[in-house]
Amino acid sequence: MSDGSDSFAQIALSLASIAGEFHLHGWLMGTSGNLSAVVNRDPLHLAMSPSGVDKGELSHAQILMIDEHAQIIVIDEQGPAVSDQPAKPSDESPLHVRIAKERGAGAVLHTHSIWNTILSDLYAADGGVAIEGYEMLKGLQGVSTHLHREWLPIIENSQDMSTLANSISEVLKQHEHAHGFLLRRHGLYSWGKDLAQAKRHVEILEFLLEALGRTLMISRQTARRVDDGFGHNHR
Amino acid sequence: MSDGSDSFAQIALSLASIAGEFHLHGWLMGTSGNLSAVVNRDPLHLAMSPSGVDKGELSHAQILMIDEHAQIIVIDEQGPAVSDQPAKPSDESPLHVRIAKERGAGAVLHTHSIWNTILSDLYAADGGVAIEGYEMLKGLQGVSTHLHREWLPIIENSQDMSTLANSISEVLKQHEHAHGFLLRRHGLYSWGKDLAQAKRHVEILEFLLEALGRTLMISRQTARRVDDGFGHNHR
Amino acid sequence: MSDGSDSFAQIALSLASIAGEFHLHGWLMGTSGNLSAVVNRDPLHLAMSPSGVDKGELSHAQILMIDEHAQIIVIDEQGPAVSDQPAKPSDESPLHVRIAKERGAGAVLHTHSIWNTILSDLYAADGGVAIEGYEMLKGLQGVSTHLHREWLPIIENSQDMSTLANSISEVLKQHEHAHGFLLRRHGLYSWGKDLAQAKRHVEILEFLLEALGRTLMISRQTARRVDDGFGHNHR
Amino acid sequence: MSDGSDSFAQIALSLASIAGEFHLHGWLMGTSGNLSAVVNRDPLHLAMSPSGVDKGELSHAQILMIDEHAQIIVIDEQGPAVSDQPAKPSDESPLHVRIAKERGAGAVLHTHSIWNTILSDLYAADGGVAIEGYEMLKGLQGVSTHLHREWLPIIENSQDMSTLANSISEVLKQHEHAHGFLLRRHGLYSWGKDLAQAKRHVEILEFLLEALGRTLMISRQTARRVDDGFGHNHR
Repeated sequence: MSDGSDSFAQIALSLASIAGEFHLHGWLMGTSGNLSAVVNRDPLHLAMSPSGVDKGELSHAQILMIDEHAQIIVIDEQGPAVSDQPAKPSDESPLHVRIAKERGAGAVLHTHSIWNTILSDLYAADGGVAIEGYEMLKGLQGVSTHLHREWLPIIENSQDMSTLANSISEVLKQHEHAHGFLLRRHGLYSWGKDLAQAKRHVEILEFLLEALGRTLMISRQTARRVDDGFGHNHR
Repeated sequence: MSDGSDSFAQIALSLASIAGEFHLHGWLMGTSGNLSAVVNRDPLHLAMSPSGVDKGELSHAQILMIDEHAQIIVIDEQGPAVSDQPAKPSDESPLHVRIAKERGAGAVLHTHSIWNTILSDLYAADGGVAIEGYEMLKGLQGVSTHLHREWLPIIENSQDMSTLANSISEVLKQHEHAHGFLLRRHGLYSWGKDLAQAKRHVEILEFLLEALGRTLMISRQTARRVDDGFGHNHR
Repeated sequence: MSDGSDSFAQIALSLASIAGEFHLHGWLMGTSGNLSAVVNRDPLHLAMSPSGVDKGELSHAQILMIDEHAQIIVIDEQGPAVSDQPAKPSDESPLHVRIAKERGAGAVLHTHSIWNTILSDLYAADGGVAIEGYEMLKGLQGVSTHLHREWLPIIENSQDMSTLANSISEVLKQHEHAHGFLLRRHGLYSWGKDLAQAKRHVEILEFLLEALGRTLMISRQTARRVDDGFGHNHR
Repeated sequence: MSDGSDSFAQIALSLASIAGEFHLHGWLMGTSGNLSAVVNRDPLHLAMSPSGVDKGELSHAQILMIDEHAQIIVIDEQGPAVSDQPAKPSDESPLHVRIAKERGAGAVLHTHSIWNTILSDLYAADGGVAIEGYEMLKGLQGVSTHLHREWLPIIENSQDMSTLANSISEVLKQHEHAHGFLLRRHGLYSWGKDLAQAKRHVEILEFLLEALGRTLMISRQTARRVDDGFGHNHR
């Protein structure tokens, strides 16, 4: 049995680096959001960001290792053991565990951006957002054409983590090809086989949600009316 | 009695660092905004940003120490004494003093962002902005659910600092759970038990004001109309 | 015959630097976009960004050299030779080759920005976007007045690179003065005699597309209505 | 007589630093915009940014010294002399000279931002933009209350620099308290007694133009309608 401690150090550095980059984008403001990556598959051990820290200042040394019950595992010379340290993994750790298990994901990233917040509310009644026809979709794993239609399910927000975890399991089963989902007025979850792929998926979904959101601010009718005012768009 | 000079140096470094970060966000453009933190509670001494400086270049050495009358305190080997130095604390220092006293705040931060400027005007007639239903609200001290309703009072702007300080006292008493307030067409004030918490509150309130402002640019009707033009949002 | 290896090293450094800067602007998110520059004209050799890499981390050492068939050329002491290395040039390399040949371009840059994505769709039915009357247009090679009218053709997106390359050739012939074109819901291609000029063209076209897109969000009618609400714009 | 060469070196460093910061804000894309500061008042010598350079890479060594006819002055051990060097001062140098003389300005800065471009067009028929009621206005030299009304005149763009210089002179005389003006679909000019003040004025005017532009995207009617959809803004 491997205790995963070597790869844990590498993964912790990568998680801190991605946290810093996403914070710069404004996707992890005010201690929001969380990040994880699988260190060991069986038993499941995740490197997990701690609760309540400023992601713009997150250090690799603050990354925790948790088991599938979201309990902290201490890494010492005798191997992992349950921790008595004061740091606390993110409250949403059970959601990361669920996604890691049900999707076989190697990394799970959760962001709170302006656009994912807005669209998660605007389309809540539809149960999800459809994104199709964009070249950018090809960056999602397994997608080979812009004609792909990505359905990003929206799940009602809750403070009950086991309710939320069960809703997520159900949605993941119903939408087996989804690359992410939105929690209403809360944020985006995406994942990948490893951290690089999960990061790519977040960047792509955030880009497409912003493109969609800004498109909603321009109706075709307005576009025509403004054309008449500012000039004519004819060859 | 402690003269607070040790912690003052640490606090001054933190204030300068937060000023630089907020300036990068565009929240302290053109010498606007100001920042303070409590160095000593009784008598009240605040570390305070000076008036009229570019916050993108604010150095810890420029941070002043003031008393509850917004008079500069000089730190020397004989302890604090009233200063004769030319630098001037922010004109809004009395507002910081008022908030530090009435809320028992350990730090007070004041930003001028595009979105707080716009919403402070748009909702002025209502006397405040209601923000509810967002997961991000949980980052505010004492808030444990997204169902929380934050009422951000709006106070009419004035150049008379004692009028403004009195309006603020009144609003703070009326809205004892508020985590901040807006001055109309002026900016946001928020605070916390310490600088880390105050910074977190500013980031959260700025995020939510931006989310609210951008949502106002998309009416549901427009969303539907555009859906018809660009595709259909059905499963 | 020159093997171009000296200039290749310089060009690779410049390509990596531009990739980093454009990534910061959000124009190359999620491994999207690609960049090339001519190393040798006859036979045509291009320095080309590889497929599937994060442009925020692109290193000069990852830049590939390709021939006019988009085959990798290995640079060694015996001169260029076809490669057996695992890295893969961008799938859109044939489009870069086509533009380099038909426009005599020394560099070709392709970005995926929010605004080029939105406008490439909004004006698709018109076959292009007209941009005129802006001082910024003068930064485009050969343009000496803001009265210039730039027509940015829009080409329907496709996954068939030879179809796309042929559509591009046709459009380049029809619009011989165009400084770039849009692929629908995909992105912008621009070019220049060298990398500095191509970069300048991308910055100018991205700026103008954003200015146009944001103008569409304000109708003159709204502007008047809001003036009445917020104040009067009279001398 | 002082040849100004000492202060020139300092001023050149400051101009390059401001250019880099404004480029980061996106106000000087694609070689647009230009910057100057007075080195000597009589005869008038200006440190001036060169024509056609990427402002994100502008070095102090590229800053030129020009006289009141926009001719380059060479600084050598024998003092200033007319230059034969290939670098060219900005085409808009005569406009900087005019402003330095007529306003007694110590520095003149010209930016091309998205928002100044849009508003310079939207309000062109009114001859200017009125900005009033914002606390941020107090950062403009001589303004002591948010009740101040700043009138930012808009001048029709032209490629004839002497026509433009004359239009500017006329506008400066008509609006003797203006802190800047807009060239239609071109950009903003602002100035100050020194570089620090000119930079502050640009940041403030850019902030206020963005606040105004974004406000135009939200009509009060929309705000109410969306309130009904997303919640109610009542105490």
